[in-house]
Amino acid sequence: MGLGMSTDHVDAGTRGEVTFINRFTVHAAHEEFERIFAEVSQFMRDKDGFLGNTLFRNVDEPHIFINVARWRGAADFRRAVADPAFAAHAGALRAVSTSEPGLYAPCLSFSAVPAGGER
Amino acid sequence: MGLGMSTDHVDAGTRGEVTFINRFTVHAAHEEFERIFAEVSQFMRDKDGFLGNTLFRNVDEPHIFINVARWRGAADFRRAVADPAFAAHAGALRAVSTSEPGLYAPCLSFSAVPAGGER
Repeated sequence: MGLGMSTDHVDAGTRGEVTFINRFTVHAAHEEFERIFAEVSQFMRDKDGFLGNTLFRNVDEPHIFINVARWRGAADFRRAVADPAFAAHAGALRAVSTSEPGLYAPCLSFSAVPAGGER
Repeated sequence: MGLGMSTDHVDAGTRGEVTFINRFTVHAAHEEFERIFAEVSQFMRDKDGFLGNTLFRNVDEPHIFINVARWRGAADFRRAVADPAFAAHAGALRAVSTSEPGLYAPCLSFSAVPAGGER
């Protein structure tokens, strides 16, 4: 962490791996949404710095989905969404859903205690 | 996927791995929230079926956090949060934040194209 960093500045957000998290409320058939989402993901996976993504579906509210996408850095992510060809993909998603996007930095992680392991 | 499954039923939600995703709006110092969150996570990691979690912090809105927690199955998750000792942890989080929780099943995943790989 650099000198002079304010406590409210998320350092990893600009210099380390970032995670784009987007919550979708789908107002079309979920198969249609998933088809379009797959096309957008296939576009993104060719972009420099894309590490991988998973689309999750809400168990209790099946029209709610969350995409969790890992990128090498914020600059890579911002470059990918600034690609003019991305606009058509974003528009296709907007035609079938509303979304609440955000760019995040990993903050804390915990793994399961190994079987028989000590705390 | 079983026979007779309705198209709106998320099969993995009850039988396969699930992911609990919770978006927090923090109204205390973020260090205090992170301290309490770590205590809750340390409680959860001892529970049967907990696989791991990551807390993410919004790069642009530093009072927004999202927890992504993987569980072996929905039953394991529901058993953990039904543990009477969990109530105090949940209350401690509620004292410093509001949250929008949901239980999700993985739906689609994409990995980066390997360097030099074919599409």
